[in-house]
Amino acid sequence: MRPHIIILGAGFGGIAAAQALRKADTDVTLIDRTNHHLFQPLLYQVAGAALSPADIATANRALLRRNKNTRILMAEASGIDAAANELCLTDGRRLRFDYLIVATGAGYSFFGNDGWRDHAFVLKSIDDALAIRAALLGAFERAEQCDDPAELRRLLTFAVVGGGPTGVELAGTIAELARTTLARDFSRVDPRATRVVLCEMGDHILRAFDPKLSQAAREMLESLGVEVRTGEKVQAIDERGLTVGDQRIDAAAVLWAAGTEARPAAAWLSADAAKNGAVKVRPDCSVPGHPNLFAIGDVASFDSGDGPLPGLAPVAKQQGHFVGRLLAAKVAGHCPDDTFSYRDYGTMAVIGRSRAVAEIAGLKLKGFVAWLAWSLVHLMLLVDFRSRMSVYVHWAWSWFTYGRGARLLTGYAPDPGETPRAAVLPEIEKEVRAAE
Amino acid sequence: MRPHIIILGAGFGGIAAAQALRKADTDVTLIDRTNHHLFQPLLYQVAGAALSPADIATANRALLRRNKNTRILMAEASGIDAAANELCLTDGRRLRFDYLIVATGAGYSFFGNDGWRDHAFVLKSIDDALAIRAALLGAFERAEQCDDPAELRRLLTFAVVGGGPTGVELAGTIAELARTTLARDFSRVDPRATRVVLCEMGDHILRAFDPKLSQAAREMLESLGVEVRTGEKVQAIDERGLTVGDQRIDAAAVLWAAGTEARPAAAWLSADAAKNGAVKVRPDCSVPGHPNLFAIGDVASFDSGDGPLPGLAPVAKQQGHFVGRLLAAKVAGHCPDDTFSYRDYGTMAVIGRSRAVAEIAGLKLKGFVAWLAWSLVHLMLLVDFRSRMSVYVHWAWSWFTYGRGARLLTGYAPDPGETPRAAVLPEIEKEVRAAE
Repeated sequence: MRPHIIILGAGFGGIAAAQALRKADTDVTLIDRTNHHLFQPLLYQVAGAALSPADIATANRALLRRNKNTRILMAEASGIDAAANELCLTDGRRLRFDYLIVATGAGYSFFGNDGWRDHAFVLKSIDDALAIRAALLGAFERAEQCDDPAELRRLLTFAVVGGGPTGVELAGTIAELARTTLARDFSRVDPRATRVVLCEMGDHILRAFDPKLSQAAREMLESLGVEVRTGEKVQAIDERGLTVGDQRIDAAAVLWAAGTEARPAAAWLSADAAKNGAVKVRPDCSVPGHPNLFAIGDVASFDSGDGPLPGLAPVAKQQGHFVGRLLAAKVAGHCPDDTFSYRDYGTMAVIGRSRAVAEIAGLKLKGFVAWLAWSLVHLMLLVDFRSRMSVYVHWAWSWFTYGRGARLLTGYAPDPGETPRAAVLPEIEKEVRAAE
Repeated sequence: MRPHIIILGAGFGGIAAAQALRKADTDVTLIDRTNHHLFQPLLYQVAGAALSPADIATANRALLRRNKNTRILMAEASGIDAAANELCLTDGRRLRFDYLIVATGAGYSFFGNDGWRDHAFVLKSIDDALAIRAALLGAFERAEQCDDPAELRRLLTFAVVGGGPTGVELAGTIAELARTTLARDFSRVDPRATRVVLCEMGDHILRAFDPKLSQAAREMLESLGVEVRTGEKVQAIDERGLTVGDQRIDAAAVLWAAGTEARPAAAWLSADAAKNGAVKVRPDCSVPGHPNLFAIGDVASFDSGDGPLPGLAPVAKQQGHFVGRLLAAKVAGHCPDDTFSYRDYGTMAVIGRSRAVAEIAGLKLKGFVAWLAWSLVHLMLLVDFRSRMSVYVHWAWSWFTYGRGARLLTGYAPDPGETPRAAVLPEIEKEVRAAE
């Protein structure tokens, strides 16, 4: 019998591992809760109504069609029985493996304030992005019909918590959506009056970047009209806004991009975990004490000697490739090189149309040059050609027209007062009921 | 004060009316439950995972940006107070009008069996199409993990009720999705074993077409593997399938495309209604007894002398244009031509890749020629250039690769057993709660 490798999670890490195992003499099972791989670095553009979900997501089955040794299951894991070498699924099934690659990624952490989760939007899945898009577009629609000045101000206020790349990208895209695309669309409301507040607890935004670039990013955000608040902690988030430091900000939507938390693989394995819950792994990405278990990407904490590697797509991708090759060599009877090392090609964050900051190979770029570098890199990284082509068409078109093609408010219909009601809800409930 | 014209509904009729009123010296308010205009003739391609919602929908505000006299409200009507010349909204507001154009369209009728509504999918909105897409893709994912032969057969069976153009298009697109796009995607399940059943109560499918074309369409469907059943009534629809004539068909999804029913404008107006609930209108599309109220498109029943006009996009579009121009002339003090006449450019139905039937200007076309005519016409009719370009790219790409770009299963995650759970549900509930 050929050895069986289970890959849990179809993010950058899991897909890279499956691709590296394509020609290996093994059976591979890739398990994911969804049916698609997501190009997460562009997810904020779906939230900002610039791209459609299909532009940045590809069906796992399409992506791995050439992997004849790979079976794909849409399922959810509930635990790992390391002693029995079995993966437990939420439907009660147990799948035996010879090797397991855990690539389940991370979610958002609310630093112990789990009540905030009910009132803040996060950005991890397509559904998250569509919920944000609906909240943004819905707020403008409700504002257009609102006669109360205080409520109107609230409906045109959006708060983003967290000054990392995701927070910066979200704040920038909301400001641009309001100031360019929607600017002339309403008769009573001027979307240019939109207030976008970016709240960062630390002293600077984009702390992973050089202080000069961080300052440049702040200035670019401010030139778009974003209000950047640093050095203040979020005290409360509720259904009508948030409190930052001692200031109350009424907002139509609060977007949380502040802290990540690895998915619970460390707890499943009773393994040693970093502060964010990530599994501390050995130099070959294996879990200490379990040479046939590997953890990669955001769910792993890999000590590069210089502190743990950051939770970035390239880290996950390179680790997936490394572990895939390692296991391919192992099952072929070779004794492979067993130390992962990360090649850092740089980091970037985009603020808006032709505005970005980037550190590439020691070069510090800002403004249009950085944006150009950013868009070239992201276009090249998009996983399949079709997506690439479609994204290119959308971008080229948006560039010339300031238009956003994906401005659809779906799953919501207005109702008495300002309540956006979920028109899709009965539909979904029906499906659930029908299948029960 | 300038006269105030309210247009209720942003379908083909409402948008055409607004466009015809663009230069009129009036205030126009366009009201719709959603924020977008939908190119409904291609909606089945969203259900079939070939197109993305944004390819066939455009924000109303973007579409009517040049209409300086037009205000757009996202709201839902609950009634018409014809005596007071007021439109009632579900949120309790009342809007005064001088002229009202009702263009609310039609929904699906279950011929009195309203319990079936809980178990069958319909295709009217983007949310409907996404629910169908999720049901189709979800069934294949569940089939891949199913060990029970009877259940497996059920999961690979899809029933479409109604042999009109929508039913034919849906049956064709499901068969093609299974037989080409998904054919090589699964390891255990062969999607080519999919059973697609099209049920038509009458003797032929596509009854509005010439009998020869109807027969050709049937043969084309059968060559795609669709099982066409005619002359049998649906007796029951439940959560696990349907009963047609005396035969039970277990199915993963039942799609209902059998009968339409106008939205309740006739009841609101206590006006004379046709069998399907549509308002019987005068030759100028006004409601008898209410010279300032007009009904157009699917919500109206217009007697062409040769029976009522069919519920087609071109009828709605031409009536919207006619009423818009009529009112523009009226407010300018002219005495306009007041009889609408429909120009019939023909009808078509598409069965699949390079298969269609069409009757254009007396010509009866079938097969590839009909398909070419169909795709040219639909490309030309798509309302704005951006959509046109994007659809073109998708089509060109799909044509060469048999690939479908929008194969995303969102809003659902698998759960214990085979229950597809609505992952987006808590998200939506949160939004609703947050706004309450």
